[in-house]
Amino acid sequence: MTTTGSNDPTSGPDTEFGSVQALTFDVFGTVVDWRTSIIRELENLAREHELTADWPAFADAWRRRYAPSMDRVRSGEIPWTNLDDLHRASLEELLVEFGVEGLSEADKDHLNHAWHRLDPWPDAVEGLTRLKERFTITTLSNGNVALLANMAKCAGLPWDTVLSAELVRHYKPDAESYLMVPRLLDLHPEQVMLVAAHPDDLRAARENELKTAYVHRPLEFGPGKEPEHPGVEFDLTAEDFLDLAVKLDT
Amino acid sequence: MTTTGSNDPTSGPDTEFGSVQALTFDVFGTVVDWRTSIIRELENLAREHELTADWPAFADAWRRRYAPSMDRVRSGEIPWTNLDDLHRASLEELLVEFGVEGLSEADKDHLNHAWHRLDPWPDAVEGLTRLKERFTITTLSNGNVALLANMAKCAGLPWDTVLSAELVRHYKPDAESYLMVPRLLDLHPEQVMLVAAHPDDLRAARENELKTAYVHRPLEFGPGKEPEHPGVEFDLTAEDFLDLAVKLDT
Repeated sequence: MTTTGSNDPTSGPDTEFGSVQALTFDVFGTVVDWRTSIIRELENLAREHELTADWPAFADAWRRRYAPSMDRVRSGEIPWTNLDDLHRASLEELLVEFGVEGLSEADKDHLNHAWHRLDPWPDAVEGLTRLKERFTITTLSNGNVALLANMAKCAGLPWDTVLSAELVRHYKPDAESYLMVPRLLDLHPEQVMLVAAHPDDLRAARENELKTAYVHRPLEFGPGKEPEHPGVEFDLTAEDFLDLAVKLDT
Repeated sequence: MTTTGSNDPTSGPDTEFGSVQALTFDVFGTVVDWRTSIIRELENLAREHELTADWPAFADAWRRRYAPSMDRVRSGEIPWTNLDDLHRASLEELLVEFGVEGLSEADKDHLNHAWHRLDPWPDAVEGLTRLKERFTITTLSNGNVALLANMAKCAGLPWDTVLSAELVRHYKPDAESYLMVPRLLDLHPEQVMLVAAHPDDLRAARENELKTAYVHRPLEFGPGKEPEHPGVEFDLTAEDFLDLAVKLDT
């Protein structure tokens, strides 16, 4: 059993990763289809309240504020603020920007909690269930614990446990968030593999000595906006979680 | 739906607890039968290594060191030390005290991790599975995250997520450990109910405004050592997790 070495991401059942004991998953975009879910929730609310706006553009704008809002925390500009509260602050700005009026505080709370109700990609639950047979499977998300726990319950995601940047009050890509996973699971970093659809996330994990698996999610940003495939940069590359399960020999 | 008020613990399906959204469980003794499991692991090791000692007494002595070892952390006498490491330090002392010699470091590590492999009480998995349908179910244990995650995987405990004193570096009964649960789940304290077989744990939870459910575990300390039943002191009293599920109307 080898614990280091390059890996052919196009190969069949993988034997290079015998030392990996835990898989930790990025969530938004990797496990769940945030865009379709948020657009649907916006459209539902619009129907109820007879509102009109470009809801796909609203969803995309909400997501575009995600990284800058966390950067304000990471830089120390504002104190620790969890993702529910960052999402809520962005929402207030976007309601003004898109000219959406007449929502109560309860409506806004419900809409903000749409991020707790995101649908999984079609392969996610079956793939995670298979991977859980061999590995400890956890989240490693910038979403707060309540968001991730509620999402898991709604979507049937069978996590062994939920791990969040909130637990160390450091958003990804801060090193503290990646290193939390092996520390709390009592593993070495190279015994943990980050699974993510985002090369930047995987590169930061690799800098902290975690193993890396890229999963391609061509529809994350909507039709016709397929992200560039990073090729063979990471330890493993998979088309979805079922493909990942095959490549990890589960 | 009432959110406050007294409750008759002998009643049938309960409607007093409509505001409770999460159940958080003490683990050692409440969910798992530590004593039988640890004695079995000690006896297995003894057979392999031809060792003799009073293994039930060894198990009881190991557990008796649990509270004092955490008190050294709680008082600040020693820095934060997780339960695996406290268990290991106690084990080293007990091996000397009981005259057990000849174990390798790997043997001792394996024995120390017996606390990750404890068997659930017979009603625990079925009861938790039923309770999970209505409530978010989590641990609230002094066991570290790795211990609790490994135990869940071994025993099939279907937690929504694992919460541990380790996450706030405050062992129960420090207030920080109890208050962590509503904080991370974005609930009010009275929306969270601690389930435990130990009155002291429940009293500390109540001081922090959590709801409380006592579950009687007559065999925790071995045959003939049934703990005194606290009567109707807590919000709910149940004979096991199946009875708890009935009383919480799940």
